[in-house]
Parts: sequence; C-alpha cells; structure tokens
Amino acid sequence: MSNDIRVTVWNEFVHEQESETVAEVYPDGIHAVVADALREGGFDVETATLQEPEHGLTEAVLDDTDVLTWWGHAAHDEVSDEVVERVKSRVLDGMGLLVLHSGHFSKIFRELMGTSCALKWREAAETERLWVTNPAHPIVDGVDEYIEVPDAEMYGEHFDIPEPDSLVFTSWFEGGEVFRSGCCYYRGEGRVFYFRPGHETYPVYHQEDIRQVLRNACGWAAPNDDGPAVVRGNHEPLAEIDTSDDRTVH
Amino acid sequence: MSNDIRVTVWNEFVHEQESETVAEVYPDGIHAVVADALREGGFDVETATLQEPEHGLTEAVLDDTDVLTWWGHAAHDEVSDEVVERVKSRVLDGMGLLVLHSGHFSKIFRELMGTSCALKWREAAETERLWVTNPAHPIVDGVDEYIEVPDAEMYGEHFDIPEPDSLVFTSWFEGGEVFRSGCCYYRGEGRVFYFRPGHETYPVYHQEDIRQVLRNACGWAAPNDDGPAVVRGNHEPLAEIDTSDDRTVH
Amino acid sequence: MSNDIRVTVWNEFVHEQESETVAEVYPDGIHAVVADALREGGFDVETATLQEPEHGLTEAVLDDTDVLTWWGHAAHDEVSDEVVERVKSRVLDGMGLLVLHSGHFSKIFRELMGTSCALKWREAAETERLWVTNPAHPIVDGVDEYIEVPDAEMYGEHFDIPEPDSLVFTSWFEGGEVFRSGCCYYRGEGRVFYFRPGHETYPVYHQEDIRQVLRNACGWAAPNDDGPAVVRGNHEPLAEIDTSDDRTVH
Amino acid sequence: MSNDIRVTVWNEFVHEQESETVAEVYPDGIHAVVADALREGGFDVETATLQEPEHGLTEAVLDDTDVLTWWGHAAHDEVSDEVVERVKSRVLDGMGLLVLHSGHFSKIFRELMGTSCALKWREAAETERLWVTNPAHPIVDGVDEYIEVPDAEMYGEHFDIPEPDSLVFTSWFEGGEVFRSGCCYYRGEGRVFYFRPGHETYPVYHQEDIRQVLRNACGWAAPNDDGPAVVRGNHEPLAEIDTSDDRTVH
Repeated sequence: MSNDIRVTVWNEFVHEQESETVAEVYPDGIHAVVADALREGGFDVETATLQEPEHGLTEAVLDDTDVLTWWGHAAHDEVSDEVVERVKSRVLDGMGLLVLHSGHFSKIFRELMGTSCALKWREAAETERLWVTNPAHPIVDGVDEYIEVPDAEMYGEHFDIPEPDSLVFTSWFEGGEVFRSGCCYYRGEGRVFYFRPGHETYPVYHQEDIRQVLRNACGWAAPNDDGPAVVRGNHEPLAEIDTSDDRTVH
Repeated sequence: MSNDIRVTVWNEFVHEQESETVAEVYPDGIHAVVADALREGGFDVETATLQEPEHGLTEAVLDDTDVLTWWGHAAHDEVSDEVVERVKSRVLDGMGLLVLHSGHFSKIFRELMGTSCALKWREAAETERLWVTNPAHPIVDGVDEYIEVPDAEMYGEHFDIPEPDSLVFTSWFEGGEVFRSGCCYYRGEGRVFYFRPGHETYPVYHQEDIRQVLRNACGWAAPNDDGPAVVRGNHEPLAEIDTSDDRTVH
Repeated sequence: MSNDIRVTVWNEFVHEQESETVAEVYPDGIHAVVADALREGGFDVETATLQEPEHGLTEAVLDDTDVLTWWGHAAHDEVSDEVVERVKSRVLDGMGLLVLHSGHFSKIFRELMGTSCALKWREAAETERLWVTNPAHPIVDGVDEYIEVPDAEMYGEHFDIPEPDSLVFTSWFEGGEVFRSGCCYYRGEGRVFYFRPGHETYPVYHQEDIRQVLRNACGWAAPNDDGPAVVRGNHEPLAEIDTSDDRTVH
Repeated sequence: MSNDIRVTVWNEFVHEQESETVAEVYPDGIHAVVADALREGGFDVETATLQEPEHGLTEAVLDDTDVLTWWGHAAHDEVSDEVVERVKSRVLDGMGLLVLHSGHFSKIFRELMGTSCALKWREAAETERLWVTNPAHPIVDGVDEYIEVPDAEMYGEHFDIPEPDSLVFTSWFEGGEVFRSGCCYYRGEGRVFYFRPGHETYPVYHQEDIRQVLRNACGWAAPNDDGPAVVRGNHEPLAEIDTSDDRTVH
C-alpha cells in the first residue's frame, strides 16, 4: 500500500561496476537494495545514478521527489556543481534529504553543513553498535535499543559537523572509537538525516533493522503537505511606525 | 475519518464556571473547544477536568491516551502531586504532551523543564503575531508565515525555560515584547510542545490557524508505534572485557 | 595566582568513611582531591559535606560560591529537600554547577533536568575513552582528542537526560557501550556541566587530564560578572498599544 | 590593559566612501568605530578592508588573528573566493568569527551556515529592542534585559539559518516583526556569533550597550589556548579487533 511519499534513491554506482567483491553484495547496485527496502514501506521509489544525464536529477525528476537519498564515495568530484546547487535549493525549499555513509564527503552534504565533514576511518570488518541516543525520535520507531552491524567500516570522531538538531544514534566500534551516526538537521524548509551505516563491501543494507531506519527516516524527512508561505526580501510594515521619534542622522 | 491517535484534553475548568466573561467565550469549557478542534482532524478525543476523581487522569485513562493536552491557570496547586508524577512518568515513557498558554506554570511543565518557567505578562488586548521560526517543522504544516491573534494577553521574555530542542514560533507583541511561543522538547521517550496562545477571555481557540497548530502538534507528539526497548540498570557486557590490563587499586 | 572564582566542592563523603578500598584511593575524601585539582588552577576553593549542618550549604556559603561541584552516590536521599531547592534556586540565578559521575542520580540534577537521569552501569574495571565531540568548546582546552581512563565503571546509553545544549564528550567502553559523558546545559541564568568520570574505587580524579577538565568546567560555569537584570511578572507596555482595534469579547 | 586577544576588524568600507550620510556617522569607516569599542575592552585590534591586497586578510594577518569581525553589504561579490576559503578554513581550525548586520549575506557566513541566510528587511528608522533570550550566556554579561536601538533597519523572520546552538538575543521591531538577532554557532574548532545591529546610516556602533556586546562576543569567540589535537583520516585501531568473527562477504 502506498504512503504517497515519492523517494528518489541516488547512487554514484561506481564500485559495483568496478569491483567483483562489491558486485557480489550489491549485484544491481546499492540503489537497487535501498530502493527495495523503501518499497517494502509503501514508498513510491525511483532511482537515479551518476552516469545518467544530469546524474538523473533533472528539474523534472526533483519536481516529483519528496525525499532524496544519497550514496556516493569514489566520485564525489564528478557530481556537477549545477546539480549540487539544484539539489541544495530543493532541500531549502522543503525536499527531504537522506545522506548515507560515505556521502558525508559529498558536495551536497558539505555545502549544507558548512564544515569539512572530515572524520576518522578504518576498514577492518569490526563490529559496530548503533546505540539509540534519542528514543523519543520518530526515526527509531521499531528499533531495538541498539543496532548491531557485525562487519563495519569504522568511522570515528571527531566528525566535523555542526552539532545535530537531534542526535538519534551514536556508534560504538570494536577498535575503540565512537561516532555520531544518526544526525538530524533542519535546513531551510527541509529536513536532512545523515545515517552512517553502509559500506559497499558489507551487506549492511540487506539488514532488516537498518532497512527499518531507512524507511523511518524517509517518513520523517518527507516535506509538509502545505508548509508556511515564507516570504523574504523588502517588506512593508505590518504595524504603524511612529515617525515622530525619528532620530536618524541627517 | 480517524487517524487512530487518542488524545485526552485536560482542563482545570475553573474560570469558565466562575466568570461570565469567560463563559461567554467558552460556554462548555476550554476543553470542549480544544477537543472539537482535534476531532476535526480525525483524532479520537476524550476530555478530563480537575474536578473529576484523580482529575480524570486515572491509570486507565492514561493507558488509552497517546497525547495529553493541558490547560490550567487558577488552580495549579490543586493538582495532586501523585497525578503529576503519574503524568510525568507517562511522558518519559512516550506519551505526547501539549502544554497550553498559562500551563507554563503548571506543576507538570515545571517538573519536566527543571526551571522556574516564569515570564512577563500583561492583559491589554494587544495584537500578537506568532512568526514561524522553523518552517521545516511538521507543526507548521499549512500555517502562514505568521499567525495573528488580534487580542492577546502578552507573555514576554525572559521566559525561564531550557533552550527548546526546536523553536517553532516566536511571538511579537504590540506593546514591545517578544516571546518564544512554540517550543518543542524531547523528554525521555516522549515529545512535549509548549504553545503560548489561549487566554481564557479571548476566543483564541476558535481561531482556525490556531486550531490547525493544535492538530499538527498532536500529530507530532503522538508516540512511536513501537519505540526502542530501552533498558536501564545493571548490565552485562556486550563484548569481552580484557581483565589482563586491570589497573584497579588493590 | 587566584582567578577570583570561588568554588565549593561538595561531597556526600560516605564511601570513603565506610570502605577501606575507597579510603586507599581517597584517604581525605573525594572532595579533597577535587579541591586540590581546582586549587592548582587558581580557584578559591572550599569544601562541604553531607554530614555538616545544612550539608555545609548554608545561604552564607552559597553567597560566596560562584561554582558548586557535586559528588554523591550512596546517600542521595539523605540530602534535604530544602537544601536542594536552595541550590536549584541559586543555579537559576547564575551559580555554576558541576555534577560528577554518580551525581547523575542526585536530587539536584534530576530536578534541573526534569527526566529520570537513569542509565546502564557495570563495574568491571574496563577501559573508557572520552572522545571530544565538540572541539570548539572551552571545556576541552588543552585536552587531547580523547581521554583514556584505564579502569572505569561503565555508564551506558540510554541516559535519560534532555539533549545537551552542547555535547562535549562521548565515551567508549570496552564492554560495548557508549555514553554522553560531558554535557553542557544552560538553566535559568546558570550553566550546568555533567561530567561522567569518577567512580570511588578508581583513582580517576588523580588523573591529570581529568583534572584539567574539572578546571576548564569551573571556568566555563562561573557566572557573568554582571548578568542581565532579568525582570519577570506583571509588566507595563514598552510601546503604546492601539486600543481602537480592541476586539475583546464583551 | 591588554587581554591578549588579537582581533582583526574587517570592513568592506564602501558606503562610507560613497555616501555623505554614512560618512557623517562613520567618518573613518565602520571599522574604526568597531575597533575603538574593542580597544576599550583591552583587545589588541587591527583593521582590514576590501580595498587592500587580499582584502587585508593575508595568511600572515590571519596567523595573528584570534577573532575576526566582518561587516559587508554592498560588495559581498567582490570578496575573492580564495580569501573566503582561507577565512573559512581558519574558523574551522579555531579562529573566532563575529558576523555583523548585513554580513548575513556575506560569502563567508553563507558558506559556514549552508543555508541561504535570506531574511526580510525595511528601512524605516524604527525602534528595535533586542531581548535577551539566554541570560546564562557570557555574551550578555553586563547587558540589561533588552537593548533598545532607537532607529534601526528592520530585519525580519523567517531568517534562513540553521537553528543556533544558542539563541542569545531576539529582536522586536516597531513595525511588527521579530528576528533572531544574536546567534551562536560552533563550527569545527571555531565559535561564530552573528549579531544583527549595525546599519550604516544609524549610529548603532556608537551605542554603549552594543559596544559591550561586541566586546563580550570577541571574548567568547576567542580560541582555546591549546585546543584538542583533533586527528582525522585513516586510523589504526586503539583496541584489538577480534577477526575470528569476521562475517565479511567473500
């Protein structure tokens, strides 16, 4: 049953075409698996990839997108600045954005955060536990008190991001690090969620509780039906201004 | 059509029975008008008042309550501490709470905030404009960039509350003050919204955009279907602990 | 050299008098060691304990206190409600408060937070690493990117607190948990810092980087010299109110 | 007496050279008046303007800058992207930044915020009151509960910024608008303060309480003496990783 929320799942789709290891985990691309997880939740899902004209993110596609999910890693620089500005503008106008894993270094995330978004990392197939640090948040609906990912790439603090508007998950890693791994932001009229899990060589997006978070996050990030008619720019007064007290320098 | 969210509208119901002026605006009590606004949004609504046994907030009633709305003013001290603790416990376990207007000084709000919740006030039938300061928030869905209340009691800063987890509305008052008038908080597994408008001598809850906010807020505050199974207390380790490096003082 | 900030170090001082193990680590009480760490930073330090009249926290003592530090564990319930209300009132009026370790369950902290402040715990002499998650904060001045405590009692999420106004440290524990272990709050005109380390059977407050954080935190929490003259209550208008548009119900 | 904090006051310095009205208020430029206010607080102050090589913001100048203040309006586009990136990098590494008035639309502020930073405005010499909304913050030290600016350009919500890490001032305007006019942000290892007052045709920076806020803000934004040695990038494990549970896809 449809929930009437339209999601575009974007993937750079490079590793899956270049690495056999990755192709075994994600034969049709990471986007296919993420899209599948969302379809199970009733979302109306399309996919788009780097290789398509305008990376598949034309104005027409974005007109039909309530929430955009973003996975990139090897080819951040190949994303055109024009498309990045287009996506940013849409987010500020209300489109939800879900940035996944190595997308922390994407142009769109760095532009929206205003910081370097740098972090520590290590590939050692170590255990990660994503602890719920805001159990009141809709994104954790149906999730246990932590999600365990048996084999994960480590991301460690300091993660150079603005302090989240809500910190929903905090990760523990076997090798000794922690990470703010589920971060909510309001930006303009849009909602942004960064979600850490998802390395291309581990079957993280096949894991049911991770898929549940993806669905919850798209539900949370979906725009209001009819948001406030925000007006900016030069503006007539709403109330009368008493000019008798005008102390302007002449 | 029901949205399956069960709301209990609580009112101390004192002014309406003591003042003819108030009774003209709210002949069946403020709760009747708030309840009516919510029913229009498909909520399943019951009401409760101070005068009922246990103020109408028995364990059984709270078992059937997803969101509780609270209006009080003249009789904050008459609310029993036992009921306050009961409500607080429910909020920390996930029940939504919507605190209205003079409820800022209620026991339940002060207990949840941890501050004095004191503020400035003035009754002068002055114009209030509630400007949207977070247009990305679900609570402002369908609201214009500001809501105007033609005759309002003034509440002014400093309002002694914790900085909100999101500040959704900020009020302008004709007489020269501002006020943080729509404040979201996460507390435990629950969501709390303080919403300023609503003085008993002005027909504020008859106003359509105010009613829209009440509905949005109850939708936002409704608990997750199946929140995380948070466990607290003494706890076995999840990973093996290396006792060989035990440097405890002997 | 004095920095002119007056700190009162409060300790329930129970374990040290009842347990030989604890007395070996803190022969003169935890308060003596904390006080010593602060004196090294130029603070003007006095101590107070549960056993003194009014727990050593008379109005006169608080008149001479810029920052109060709080360590309690076994005897939270023995702290009188009157003293708790006195301390709370002082914090809202600007006195800094530093709540240490098991002080998370003290009356004063729970009153100021409004939540249960419950958490997970385990005593297993395991390694803790406190990672800096806000490197821009004054409390981390001179601290490395993490502080390692070789033998720590574990505290784990979910920690039932309001989302901090700044999350300065996040702990990793060997056994698999994470914890928000350095949390800043503004409450009223006062600043509050919760700092997790400090179990009574481990020599945590003898550790130099922990002592550095204690000093930084007292510096941060010290009140403004001359804070704003906040006024609350019934209030005359600052600007003229146009009564011609009075639409009050009659 | 010097407080050892080095401030560089930057001004585009265009209006003062083009408009007689502005030159009457700020004959030596806005920077001269801001610098003077800071020198009164013991800061070690230099100035820099758009017209200088590299806008006066060379690497050498920034090496000697603890806090940079920014005033721009007419010539935001003339600031070179290279200098903007240089300043941004310094802020993320710990340099304080104080963005004044129309600097809300500067490249550096928009880059650090990640949003459009758009707002409403009106020039009508109307009264502004900046109410203190966080009396616990060091930036309001010595300030009354509000600051009144008799003749101000109006800036109104919605102001498209991330929710501040602390909202210190909220403005009331005679004509009916409110504005978040004192906003603190942590970004990387740096602290950023946006402060609204300061239109070029009104003598706002000659006003004593405004000058006090400028001084407080520079004190707050000054970097830590010896911040945490944050490390990012590929990283060796701190604890042993158990490879026996390696469940990587093969």
